[in-house]
Amino acid sequence: MAPTSPQPAPPPGRSAPDSSRRSEKSRRAIFDAALALVGEVGYPRTTIEGVAARAGVGKQTIYRWWPSKAAVLLDAFMDLAERAAREAGQESYEIPDTGDLAADLKQVLRATVDELLNPAFEIPSRALAAEGLVNEALGAEFVSKLLEPQLQLYVKRLRSAQDEGDLRPDLDPRIALELFVSPLAQRWLQRTGPISYAYTDTLVDYALYGLAPRR
Amino acid sequence: MAPTSPQPAPPPGRSAPDSSRRSEKSRRAIFDAALALVGEVGYPRTTIEGVAARAGVGKQTIYRWWPSKAAVLLDAFMDLAERAAREAGQESYEIPDTGDLAADLKQVLRATVDELLNPAFEIPSRALAAEGLVNEALGAEFVSKLLEPQLQLYVKRLRSAQDEGDLRPDLDPRIALELFVSPLAQRWLQRTGPISYAYTDTLVDYALYGLAPRR
Repeated sequence: MAPTSPQPAPPPGRSAPDSSRRSEKSRRAIFDAALALVGEVGYPRTTIEGVAARAGVGKQTIYRWWPSKAAVLLDAFMDLAERAAREAGQESYEIPDTGDLAADLKQVLRATVDELLNPAFEIPSRALAAEGLVNEALGAEFVSKLLEPQLQLYVKRLRSAQDEGDLRPDLDPRIALELFVSPLAQRWLQRTGPISYAYTDTLVDYALYGLAPRR
Repeated sequence: MAPTSPQPAPPPGRSAPDSSRRSEKSRRAIFDAALALVGEVGYPRTTIEGVAARAGVGKQTIYRWWPSKAAVLLDAFMDLAERAAREAGQESYEIPDTGDLAADLKQVLRATVDELLNPAFEIPSRALAAEGLVNEALGAEFVSKLLEPQLQLYVKRLRSAQDEGDLRPDLDPRIALELFVSPLAQRWLQRTGPISYAYTDTLVDYALYGLAPRR
């Protein structure tokens, strides 16, 4: 989900440029293989051996850089989220702050809609999310390393809006953001309804201005 | 999630009361076995054979009443949700309409918190929800038979609030309900934060009165 957390450091390169290019190529192949496999067979049946075979690298190459299957996949997802956000037109790891809170939130949520409708992002993300529901350790890593850092960007933007008087001063931004982020997450995850720009724009308007009439 | 959809019709009984009592006992044993198994080994590894063995009934008894594993489990969940709602103090399949919208929504969401914190409900529900994310056919059944009928009870209550002038007349109740239902669903499903009465009360207040100051 956009905006994404910063890209993880690349695996340690060697001194020679050729070797470093080879490392980057292997890293890319490993990520692609890991994401493809988890989307095809699910997390439990994805193995380091399978990823290595598909990436055309030795198993030891993977173990040199990552301690576990979960670690490779989390890095692959962080990289994927970053690429998806870039494709969706996001340039930075910040939520824009133009002074127009509604417009800024709508822009970021529209970029998130683009990501969620992109099969390259959607299929492996769904497989990881599904596993996270029942595998508590993986779910906790998924939340703390991928999801929560993204939600904290909203917290920051909402705090700035509170400073500007555009948001109630007494509200908890960490809960407030859920009013427009969680509905999109649930529609996407559980397929409870269609997602679109019109939908996320509506969520922002409902959340900011409230469901009850202002009288 | 409370409130729940009506209990499905019991399997066809025989004419004699003894036989009908036996049927009800078998049905209960099958539901209990199905829920326990799906919580323990997950949906993919739950089988009709395993459910029958654990329930102490013949496989044919299950196939006489349900066409598939998915069908048994969906009925077991509908029954479970109904029992959990009853334990949580709900008496009917309606959201109360006392004329105080905030109070009525808070009451129903508090009952849902009780359900979600009940392991008997939580463990199998999580297993089914996880499978629904990646198994599109099961997910669609889960949503249309279990989740959406519950959400429609909120739609009904919100429409009544619109008639009373307690909710903006122009808003779409099906989207509006997501502002307080989806955050709870996401915190529960993805364990992104603690759930409590204080949390769901806050969601209702934020959603009804909006995040932006009323000026």
